[in-house]
Amino acid sequence: MATRSPLAPDTFPDLPEIAGLRLASAAAGVRYQGRTDVMLALLDPGTTVAGVFTRSATRSSNVRDCEAKIGGDSAGGAAIIVNSGNSNAFTGKAGDGSVTRICAAVAEAAGVTEARVFTSSTGVIGERLPDERITAVVGDLVANAVPGALEDAAGAIMTTDTFPKGSARVVEVDGQEVRIAGIAKGSGMIAPDMATMLVYIFTDAKIARPLLQEMLSELSDRTFNCITVDGDTSTSDTLLLAATGQSVEITERGGAFEAALGEVMLDLAHQVVRDGEGATKFVEVAVTGAATDADARKVASAIANSPLVKTAVAGEDPNWGRIVMAVGKSDAEADRDRLTIRFGDIEVAREGWVSPDYTEDAGAGYMKQQELVIGVDLGLGDGAATMWTCDLTHAYIQINADYRS
Amino acid sequence: MATRSPLAPDTFPDLPEIAGLRLASAAAGVRYQGRTDVMLALLDPGTTVAGVFTRSATRSSNVRDCEAKIGGDSAGGAAIIVNSGNSNAFTGKAGDGSVTRICAAVAEAAGVTEARVFTSSTGVIGERLPDERITAVVGDLVANAVPGALEDAAGAIMTTDTFPKGSARVVEVDGQEVRIAGIAKGSGMIAPDMATMLVYIFTDAKIARPLLQEMLSELSDRTFNCITVDGDTSTSDTLLLAATGQSVEITERGGAFEAALGEVMLDLAHQVVRDGEGATKFVEVAVTGAATDADARKVASAIANSPLVKTAVAGEDPNWGRIVMAVGKSDAEADRDRLTIRFGDIEVAREGWVSPDYTEDAGAGYMKQQELVIGVDLGLGDGAATMWTCDLTHAYIQINADYRS
Repeated sequence: MATRSPLAPDTFPDLPEIAGLRLASAAAGVRYQGRTDVMLALLDPGTTVAGVFTRSATRSSNVRDCEAKIGGDSAGGAAIIVNSGNSNAFTGKAGDGSVTRICAAVAEAAGVTEARVFTSSTGVIGERLPDERITAVVGDLVANAVPGALEDAAGAIMTTDTFPKGSARVVEVDGQEVRIAGIAKGSGMIAPDMATMLVYIFTDAKIARPLLQEMLSELSDRTFNCITVDGDTSTSDTLLLAATGQSVEITERGGAFEAALGEVMLDLAHQVVRDGEGATKFVEVAVTGAATDADARKVASAIANSPLVKTAVAGEDPNWGRIVMAVGKSDAEADRDRLTIRFGDIEVAREGWVSPDYTEDAGAGYMKQQELVIGVDLGLGDGAATMWTCDLTHAYIQINADYRS
Repeated sequence: MATRSPLAPDTFPDLPEIAGLRLASAAAGVRYQGRTDVMLALLDPGTTVAGVFTRSATRSSNVRDCEAKIGGDSAGGAAIIVNSGNSNAFTGKAGDGSVTRICAAVAEAAGVTEARVFTSSTGVIGERLPDERITAVVGDLVANAVPGALEDAAGAIMTTDTFPKGSARVVEVDGQEVRIAGIAKGSGMIAPDMATMLVYIFTDAKIARPLLQEMLSELSDRTFNCITVDGDTSTSDTLLLAATGQSVEITERGGAFEAALGEVMLDLAHQVVRDGEGATKFVEVAVTGAATDADARKVASAIANSPLVKTAVAGEDPNWGRIVMAVGKSDAEADRDRLTIRFGDIEVAREGWVSPDYTEDAGAGYMKQQELVIGVDLGLGDGAATMWTCDLTHAYIQINADYRS
C-alpha cells in the first residue's frame, strides 16, 4: 500500500453504533492478499434505502442491479455487500451472473429477499469477478456481523486509498438522539458526475424512502458532485443511504438531521479529495459573482480539473495566469476587466490585471500551505459554486502508470 | 531548453520560398536571453489573410485585435509580428496599449496600414509585455527581411517547444505550381477548441478572402481542433493563413490546393502533439460506429483527454478498462454490449467483454510502440471522429510545476 496521504486526518473518527445495523468484513482473496476485501452490512426490517449512482454509459452490472432495486419496498431486512479488487465492470453477461449469484447467496444466508440485496464492486475493470470467492465467505460474514465495526468495513472496501474514510454526526431531533455514520472509498477516477466513488451512510432515523432519496440526491449535488481528483468518472460510483427507522421519524426537509447528513457527506467527500492519488495539497475553488450558478460551476470545474492549474499548485507556483486561462476556457460568461482572483485573503488580480499591491513573494508564500483556497469573482451577478480538488503530482503518474502491475 | 522530444521528426523540412513573403527574426530579449524571440513576416500588396482564433473568454489583446482586423481589405501590404516569452494576456488596458504601439511601429517601418498588421504574443500570462524591446528591433527586422527564412521564424516563436515545426506542399493547379508553407509553435495548454497554439501558413495562390476563410475554418475543425495535449485552452491561440496571390487563382472548394492545405495543417497539428509536454507516445484515437459524428467526437475527446488513459499509455499498460471508463463518461450514446475496442489491429474487447483471443501479452507488446492507435467502434451508427494526443508523463508534471522559475 502507498504511503498514507499527507492530507489524511490523524485518526479514524469514532463512529457511533447505528441501531438496526450490523457489519462484518472478510479476506476473500478476490485480488489482494493479506487484507480484508469484502464487507457486509445487514439492515433490520423497516430500513429504507436511497441511492445515487454513476451516470456512466458503461456502468457496472452491480450499479445497474442497484438502480433496478433501489425503489423497492422496505418491509423486510436488507443487505449491502461490497468487494474491492475487481469492479465487475465491462464483464458482459458474466458480470450480470456474478451479481445474481452474490445476491442469492446473501439473501439465503441473511434471510432477506434478493430484491433487497445491494452490491458494489470496485477495482480493476474488465476482468471476470471471481464471485465464488465472495459467496464462499458470505456465511461467515452473516455469522460474524456485529454492531459498530464500521472502521473495519471502511478498510475492506479500499483500493488505492491510503486511509480508511469515515464520518459521523449525532443530532437531537424532537428531543431524541439521531445518529448518522458513513464510510467511503475512492482516490482516483474521481469526477463530479453523480455519486462519486463508493459511499455507504447509515442512520437510525425513520424516513420514508421518497424523502430519503430527495435529501440524498440534493445533498450529493453540493458534496460528492463538487469534488474532483482527475476528472475521470468511475463505472462503479455508488452512494447508498440506509435509514433503519429505530430512532425518531423525520418527515420534513431542512431540519437538523438534513444539516447533519450534509455535513457527513461533505466530510466524506473532502476525505476522498484528501486521498486523491498523489495529492499533497487540498484546494478549495470558490467562485462567486457569476451570471448564474451553472456558470459558476463551469468556472470552478474548469479550474479544479485543469492539469496546468493542478501542476502549478503541486509546484507551489502562484501561477494565477493559469487560473485566467481556465476561466477563459470554461465556456461561462466572463469579462476580463471585471474578474478578481484571490489566493486565500490575498488579492492577486483585478480589473483585468495583477493587483497593484500583489507581490509574487506573497503569492509564493501562500502556495506553500497544505490547504489552499483559490477565489474567483467574475463581477457579473450572484452565481456561486464551490468545488474541491487536489494537486497533480508525480505520484499520480506513478500510481496510474503502474496500477495493474 | 528541454531535451528534444523523442517523437520529433529527424529534421526540419525543406520549405519552399513563397513569392510575396519575406521574413526576419531577432533577439529582442523579451524574456529569454541568447535566442531569437521575435519574428516578422512581410506580405506584398494583394495578399489576403484569413484567421481562426481561440474562443477563450480571457483571450489576449493581440487575439482581440487580430479578430477585429481579419475581415479588412487586401489592397495594401500586410505584416505579421510574433513574440515569444510573454503572452500579453490578462494585462488589461496596458496590454491593449502594447498591441497598438507594436502595430504602429511595424506599420511605419514596413509601409503598411496599422489595420493590416497582425500580432501574436506567446508565453507567460499576466506580466506586462515589454513592448519597447520589440519596437526597438522592428526597424532591423524590416531591413533584414528576406524570402525563405521560415525555419528561423519557427525557432523565434518557440516557448516550451523542443523543436521548430514546419510543413510544406507544392501542388499543381491549372498547370501551374502553387506553394504552401507553414510554421507552428505549441506544446502545452493545447486543447481542441478552435485554432490551437500559434500557426502561420503562407501560400502564393491567389484566393479571395471569403473562400480562404471558409477553407481555413473547415480544415481547422479536422486538424488543429482534433488534437489535445492537456485539455487546456490557451488565451492566445491564433492561426493565420496568408495568400500572396502571386501564383494561380483558386476559386473553388475541394481541389488539389485545399487537399494540400489540409495536409500541411494536419502535419503541423501532429507535430504539436509530438512536442506535447513530456510526450513519449503519439496516440491516434479513432472512433467509429457512433450514433452521430458529434457523439464520436465526444468519445474521442473523452479518451484523448483522460488522465487515466494517458498515464496508462505512459506506463505501456494495455489498460483497456480505462477506455471503457472514458467511453462511459463521454456523454455519448453507448451500449456496453455493442462496443468494440482495438489496439492497432488487435481486437481487445467486444460484446461487452474482453475478446476471446485477446491476450495481455499481445496488448502489452503493442503498447511498447511509440506510435499507437486506439480504435473504438460503438456499433450504433455511422458517426466517426479521429483525434490525436500524447501520453501523460512525469516530464509533463516537471515542466508545468516549474515553468516560471
